[in-house]
Amino acid sequence: MENLLSAEQISKEVFNQIYRDALKVRKAIREGRKKFSALRGKCVVNLFFEPSTRTRSSFEKAGKFLSADVINISTSVSSVQKGESLVDTVKNLDMMHPDVIVLRHPCEGAPHLAQKFVNASIVNAGDGRHQHPTQALLDCATLTEHFGTLEGKKVTIVGDIANSRVARSDATLLRELGAEVYVYGPSTMMPRVIEALGVKPLSSFKEVGELSDAVILLRIQLERQEAKKSFPSVREYAELFGLNAKKIKLLKPDAVILHPGPFNRGVEITGDVAYSGRSLIFPQVEMGLAVRMVLLATLCGRIEKLKEEVQ
Amino acid sequence: MENLLSAEQISKEVFNQIYRDALKVRKAIREGRKKFSALRGKCVVNLFFEPSTRTRSSFEKAGKFLSADVINISTSVSSVQKGESLVDTVKNLDMMHPDVIVLRHPCEGAPHLAQKFVNASIVNAGDGRHQHPTQALLDCATLTEHFGTLEGKKVTIVGDIANSRVARSDATLLRELGAEVYVYGPSTMMPRVIEALGVKPLSSFKEVGELSDAVILLRIQLERQEAKKSFPSVREYAELFGLNAKKIKLLKPDAVILHPGPFNRGVEITGDVAYSGRSLIFPQVEMGLAVRMVLLATLCGRIEKLKEEVQ
Amino acid sequence: MENLLSAEQISKEVFNQIYRDALKVRKAIREGRKKFSALRGKCVVNLFFEPSTRTRSSFEKAGKFLSADVINISTSVSSVQKGESLVDTVKNLDMMHPDVIVLRHPCEGAPHLAQKFVNASIVNAGDGRHQHPTQALLDCATLTEHFGTLEGKKVTIVGDIANSRVARSDATLLRELGAEVYVYGPSTMMPRVIEALGVKPLSSFKEVGELSDAVILLRIQLERQEAKKSFPSVREYAELFGLNAKKIKLLKPDAVILHPGPFNRGVEITGDVAYSGRSLIFPQVEMGLAVRMVLLATLCGRIEKLKEEVQ
Repeated sequence: MENLLSAEQISKEVFNQIYRDALKVRKAIREGRKKFSALRGKCVVNLFFEPSTRTRSSFEKAGKFLSADVINISTSVSSVQKGESLVDTVKNLDMMHPDVIVLRHPCEGAPHLAQKFVNASIVNAGDGRHQHPTQALLDCATLTEHFGTLEGKKVTIVGDIANSRVARSDATLLRELGAEVYVYGPSTMMPRVIEALGVKPLSSFKEVGELSDAVILLRIQLERQEAKKSFPSVREYAELFGLNAKKIKLLKPDAVILHPGPFNRGVEITGDVAYSGRSLIFPQVEMGLAVRMVLLATLCGRIEKLKEEVQ
Repeated sequence: MENLLSAEQISKEVFNQIYRDALKVRKAIREGRKKFSALRGKCVVNLFFEPSTRTRSSFEKAGKFLSADVINISTSVSSVQKGESLVDTVKNLDMMHPDVIVLRHPCEGAPHLAQKFVNASIVNAGDGRHQHPTQALLDCATLTEHFGTLEGKKVTIVGDIANSRVARSDATLLRELGAEVYVYGPSTMMPRVIEALGVKPLSSFKEVGELSDAVILLRIQLERQEAKKSFPSVREYAELFGLNAKKIKLLKPDAVILHPGPFNRGVEITGDVAYSGRSLIFPQVEMGLAVRMVLLATLCGRIEKLKEEVQ
Repeated sequence: MENLLSAEQISKEVFNQIYRDALKVRKAIREGRKKFSALRGKCVVNLFFEPSTRTRSSFEKAGKFLSADVINISTSVSSVQKGESLVDTVKNLDMMHPDVIVLRHPCEGAPHLAQKFVNASIVNAGDGRHQHPTQALLDCATLTEHFGTLEGKKVTIVGDIANSRVARSDATLLRELGAEVYVYGPSTMMPRVIEALGVKPLSSFKEVGELSDAVILLRIQLERQEAKKSFPSVREYAELFGLNAKKIKLLKPDAVILHPGPFNRGVEITGDVAYSGRSLIFPQVEMGLAVRMVLLATLCGRIEKLKEEVQ
C-alpha cells in the first residue's frame, strides 16, 4: 500500500492484517509500552485544512509513539490563508522529504489530486463529504473485535447520510467485510441515489431497532444546520433520530452503538447512553490510535519492525 | 500525588521536596544539560481552552526536556468549537493513553470534573478564577530561594484579588509555608468575604511598602477591563496600584517584586522596575520550568529516575 | 556566528561553507537519512508573529531532523494578544534556556532588538520589509548549485521591491557573491533611493529577458493590495510583471526562475511555468531545509558533529 485515499482500497485481506496488528499494538500500549522505534528517522506531516482535535491528535500520537518526527500544519496558521493552491502546498511540503502526509481537506478528491504531485504517501483524513478511510478502519476493527466477525451482521448508519464521509467510508468497508448495511435519517439527508452506496434505507427507528446488530450514529453538523436547515429543529432530530435511555430499549439487547465523535449530547445520543456498556464510542478512539500506528508503519515499510517491537 | 488540582493539596513537606528537586534540575539545565530520559515512553497532553504562551510552552518544554511525547491541543483548532463537552473531550483523549493531561479551562472546577473520567493524571494549569497551583509552586519556590524560608515573611498580593486564580493559589501555599499574606487593590476587585482567603487587606500603597518583604503584582486583564470597567482608567490604576521607579522607594530596601506575567508595561509595573535587581519576574519563569519538570516526573512515578539523572 | 539577523552578516566565505555543508546534508536526506543527533539536548523555539507555513515548517523540520526539541509559538495562541512587548516575550522565553529563537515579526529591527535581551541565538525569519536572511541563503545556494558560481551572473528581482524583505536580503547576498543585481516592477513598488540597494532598475520585461541569467519573482501581497492599491489590477500586474508560457520566450534559453513562495498562480507566475524545467522554485524549498539545518547546527556549535554524521 502506498497511499490510503479511500475505503475502497481496503480489501478483506488487508483489513484483517491491519486489524490483527492493531490488536497487538493496542495490547502493548495498554501495558504501558508507548514508545517504539519503528518510524525513527521518518517524518509524518499532519496537513489539516479543517479544524480537528481527535483525528489530528490521534495521528500525531500514532506518529510520535512510533518515534517519527511529526509536523502539524493547520489552516489557521498556514499560508493557504494567502490563497496558495493545494497542489502547490503539498508539492512544497514534499520537497522537505516527509514520508507520509496526512491530509484533511474540505474538498472531495483533494487527497487524490495531492498524491499525483508528491513522493510522500498520502493518507486521506477526510475530504469533504467523500471519504474518511481510517474512520472505516477503526469502526470495522472495533466491531470485528466485538462480534468476532462482521459476516452477516446488520449495521445501520443513522443521520446525515448524504453529507457524511463517515457513512460513505463505513458502508464500503462494512460491505467488503460481509456486513449488511442499512441507513436511516431525515429524508432531506438521504442521498438521491441511495442504491449507489449499496445500502438499504429504513423508515422508522423501530425498524432500526428490530434489525440492527450495531448502530452507527453520525454527528449532526449543528454549526452548518444554522445555515442549511435540513431538519426543523434540533429537538425534533433528537426525538426522531437520537438515542436516549428510553429509545435504547427499541434496540436488540446485545446491539451496540458507535459514533465517530465528537457527539452532541442530547442530540444524536444522551450522555448516559454514550457512557453505557452498550456504547463502543470510547473503544473506537483507542482502536483508532492502534489502527493508525499500524497504517503509518505499513506505509513507511516498517510494519515488520513494529510487529517485532510489540511481540 | 496523582493529580495536581489545587494549591490546597500541597503540604509543606511536598513543597519542600519539589523545591529541592527543582533546584537540582535547574542547576543541570543551567549547565546546558537539557535532555533527560526520565519520561521516555510517557505522553503529556497540553489541553488549553484559553490562549497561553508561557504556561503552555513551559509545560511543553518540561515534557520535551524529559523525553516525553508532548501533544498540544488548543481551542482555536479544537473540536470544542463544535460544542463538545469537556468531559467527552478528556475522556476521548484519555482513550489514547496519555499519562498526564495539563488542563487550562475558563470554568472553575473543570480539572476536578475532568479527573473523575480519566486514568491520566490531571494538572490544573488554571481554571477560571479558581486555581493555578503550579504558579503557586513556582512563586513560592522563587521566594523560598530568595529568603531561605517563607516562615514569618510578609507577602502582599496587589491587584484584582477577587478574580485571580494566582492570588487564590499563592495565598494558600504561602500560608501553608508560614508566610503572612496581605492583599491590596481597588475595592471593586476585592473578594466579598476576604477573610475566607486567610489574608488581610491593606488600605494604601504606603502600608504595603512599610510591611511587605515581597510584593506579588497581578496582571490586569486589560482586554476584560474594556467591558467591565472595574476601575476608572488604566492610568489611575497605574498610579494607585502600579510600581514604578518612584514608588519602589516606598518598599523596604530588600523587598522583592514578583509578577506571574505577562505584565502590562506601565500599568502594573514599569519596564525599568521589571528588569531591575529588585524584580524576580524572570527567575520565576526559570523556576517554573524546573518545578514543572519535577511535577511531571512525580506524577509519572519517575522522580527517582530524574533525580538520578540530575545528580 | 552567534545570530543571523541580516544578509549583510554573510560573507562569501561563510556562505561557501554553509553551502558546501548544505549539499552534504541534502544528499543524506535524499538518501533517506533524516535523523541526526547533532542537536540532541538543544532547544529551538519558532516564535512567529506572522502566519507562515513554509518557513516555520522548514525550521521545525530542520530542528527535528537534528534531534533538537522544537517549540512552536505563533501569535494566534500567544500572550502577545494580551499586549505583551516583544522584549518581554523573548526575555521570558529565554529564561527557559532555548538555544535558538527563530523569530518572525512584522516590525523592522525586531530581531536586532530581541538579541540584546537574550542568551539564545536569534535567527531572523523575516522582520517586516527589512530582512529574511535564510531566504537569501537558500536562494543563493540554489543559484550557486545551478550556475557553479554567481560571479558575474545577472539576476533580476521582479515585483514589489520597496516592500520586500526577500528583495533586500537577496540583493545583499547576491552582490556579495559577485552577481549583478537588477530590479523590475511597478514604479509604485520601487524604493525611493534605489541606488542604496546597489541594484539597477530595468524598464521593460524585454530588457529583463535579454539581460538576466536568473529571475527572482516576488510574491504580490494580494491581501494587502485590497487596501493599498499599488497597481490598478491583478490582471494588469500579471500581464506586465508576471511570467507565463508566452513571456518565458523573452528570457534567455538557459535563464532560470525563482520564487520564494507561496506563489499566486496566474499572477506572478502561471502553474505550467512554475512546474517547468526552467523553474527552481521547488529545489529552493529542498535547499532551504538543508541550509537551515546547517545554520542551526552552526549556531549551536555542533556543525562539526553534523558534518561527521553526514559523511
